[in-house]
Amino acid sequence: MIYLDNAATTRPYPEALATYTEVASKIWGNPSSLHQLGSQASRILQASRKQIADLIGVLPQEIFFTSGGTEGDNWVIKGVAFEKEQFGKHIIVSDIEHPAVKESALWLKTQGYEVDFAPVDQQGFVDVEKLATLLRPDTILVSVMAVNNEIGSIQPIQTISDLLKDKPTISFHVDAVQALAKIPTATYLTDRVDFATFSSHKFHGLRGVGFAYIKNGKKITPLLTGGGQETDKRSTTENLAGIAATAKALRLAMERQEEFTHKTSQMKQVLLQGLSAYEDIRIFSGQDQFAPHILTFGLKGVRGEVLVHAFEEYGIYVSTTSACSSKAGKPAGTLLSMGIQSQLATTAVRMSLDLENDMSQIEQVLTTFKIIYEQTKKVR
Amino acid sequence: MIYLDNAATTRPYPEALATYTEVASKIWGNPSSLHQLGSQASRILQASRKQIADLIGVLPQEIFFTSGGTEGDNWVIKGVAFEKEQFGKHIIVSDIEHPAVKESALWLKTQGYEVDFAPVDQQGFVDVEKLATLLRPDTILVSVMAVNNEIGSIQPIQTISDLLKDKPTISFHVDAVQALAKIPTATYLTDRVDFATFSSHKFHGLRGVGFAYIKNGKKITPLLTGGGQETDKRSTTENLAGIAATAKALRLAMERQEEFTHKTSQMKQVLLQGLSAYEDIRIFSGQDQFAPHILTFGLKGVRGEVLVHAFEEYGIYVSTTSACSSKAGKPAGTLLSMGIQSQLATTAVRMSLDLENDMSQIEQVLTTFKIIYEQTKKVR
Ligand SMILES: Cc1ncc(COP(=O)(O)O)c(C=O)c1O
Ligand SMILES: Cc1ncc(COP(=O)(O)O)c(C=O)c1O
Repeated sequence: MIYLDNAATTRPYPEALATYTEVASKIWGNPSSLHQLGSQASRILQASRKQIADLIGVLPQEIFFTSGGTEGDNWVIKGVAFEKEQFGKHIIVSDIEHPAVKESALWLKTQGYEVDFAPVDQQGFVDVEKLATLLRPDTILVSVMAVNNEIGSIQPIQTISDLLKDKPTISFHVDAVQALAKIPTATYLTDRVDFATFSSHKFHGLRGVGFAYIKNGKKITPLLTGGGQETDKRSTTENLAGIAATAKALRLAMERQEEFTHKTSQMKQVLLQGLSAYEDIRIFSGQDQFAPHILTFGLKGVRGEVLVHAFEEYGIYVSTTSACSSKAGKPAGTLLSMGIQSQLATTAVRMSLDLENDMSQIEQVLTTFKIIYEQTKKVR
Repeated sequence: MIYLDNAATTRPYPEALATYTEVASKIWGNPSSLHQLGSQASRILQASRKQIADLIGVLPQEIFFTSGGTEGDNWVIKGVAFEKEQFGKHIIVSDIEHPAVKESALWLKTQGYEVDFAPVDQQGFVDVEKLATLLRPDTILVSVMAVNNEIGSIQPIQTISDLLKDKPTISFHVDAVQALAKIPTATYLTDRVDFATFSSHKFHGLRGVGFAYIKNGKKITPLLTGGGQETDKRSTTENLAGIAATAKALRLAMERQEEFTHKTSQMKQVLLQGLSAYEDIRIFSGQDQFAPHILTFGLKGVRGEVLVHAFEEYGIYVSTTSACSSKAGKPAGTLLSMGIQSQLATTAVRMSLDLENDMSQIEQVLTTFKIIYEQTKKVR
């Protein structure tokens, strides 16, 4: 099997899974319990929080555990909107955000908020000058992702940070789900960022766990109210085993990040070269200012899912851009935002690489593509 | 160790944990992916959904996975309120709901909703006649839990169902977190119930997983919007391993429910008899119409946490009613609602039993209590 769908989800590290099992079977007390099973659990919770905070260079009290990227995004978008309602009801999200952000913003529209979508250029980067023109005195939130999940473009978070520097009343959220442990943290977790959201299963952690960075002192209305866990910001009995496993996975992924970048960008380069040689290929992901591991392209006249299934016949797993839109059969939203016409956008196929892949797999992918290219000639 | 804090959380069944590990290490594909790793994951997801639905006697399409009881409760309370806004903004929740329900209702107040709290009698049962007087033409939701988490009282869900029979515009939600696999499902999942919420870690499943029952055709605004998972009702990459483990745990717990009832009620009876013999004891949980496994009492003049720590010295783990309020040192809300004065309410200690406990442990608990009773005499 050649798994090139790492942006959809990654294989959990065996070490992270071992931590999960260890904690779930031995330290299963409720961290809120007064007795020592509770305090033991509570210590592990705080140790995991500190480890994660240290790894991304923030304070432990700025980390709040969630059930994943979607909850984090919904929480920040809705929670900031509700919290700052009296200061204004205008928010800006980029036009290429993940549905977790985009749909949250659209829902807020039904609640009387005004939403503007910041456009991107033809390469898939948020146009900061155009974003600047959308800012209003009643703007309370700007949300722009760090790495786009459909084509891998790295968004200009530093430039937007500079733009928002003198506008302290605007909260700045970065969806960093596809960025963590893939590109350097400093590039998207700038001083100006108030909120950032992360998901464990994208860096070889476990499904159903994530965390939000909330800068010290920044207020947000909870999405999950109740027992008062996570300093009353996010209630529910803590998923301690999942949290400890997330800390473990993040440590390993961060240790390997340099190697990840080196190896995946080499593989991407070979793929890019190999694919570019074909006439009917259209490449949607570049190298400069793109995540090293994501490569999206299309074969003219062939729908993405046809290619996905063709590759599958050879044990190669790729996807039609985002996993969540693939079943709906919708064309990649990011490509449409870039001005690519709908017909061409439906050809998109995403290959997302990982340290677990190697060059011999890439060669196999290219050899396979050659066969598929010939096979599809008659239908193109 | 004698663990009598099963209402706070239960030890995961080894079988459930084994399922988790198996799925997380072997079937870690994203169910939304088009390729066969995705479809394999998707099949397991649907099989787990069907198994859970069958076990509680509902349809698979009526089960929606969540991150736990708190998310379920927040979702139903807020989601129904937002969904039905145009029909009315009045909701009723019982006065002894878990904070996940109560705080959600209180938050809705800040959004212009009106909330009434249905009172309970001195024994801790919702007063259905008083609840009836709170119903209004603009009432959109009634929420009453199945089993109270602080004293174990079983709420009159059938009577409330009868009351609401001719009022189809009112949604009826039951928080069944403490009821599932402890008391017969039919007693709280009546035909009239529209929404019910459950949490895996209360029946030896895993932390961070739960599910909501949503009756066919009942509308609710999603709390987590995004990629469109769970038929667009609850987005996020599915925690497949946790979901499969939940199905496994529920099957085992349901198979053992009769034995559970038999064994825990015997142990509770012995505890009740033993404790009642002491002069300064005040028992808060009865037997008839109470869950078989929950017993809450107080030792006059001794704060609950003092007893918790005294028991702990002997390796016995109990709690001060709900785990989540224990750290805050707040008196048990349910007891206050029952009209018990604050001073007495702070003495509350909850013992919550399980099939994993046995009669020799109960004898040890009573022997230990005798010692503690003597020891605390001077401070009382
Ligand atoms: C950019 C981005 N944001 C949010 C999410 C949602 O994360 P999760 O699946 O953990 O809910 C994803 C992945 O699905 C993503 O790629
Ligand atoms: C009655 C009740 N509802 C909701 C919850 C919340 O469940 P969870 O811990 O899964 O969020 C609990 C337990 O904590 C509970 O006892």
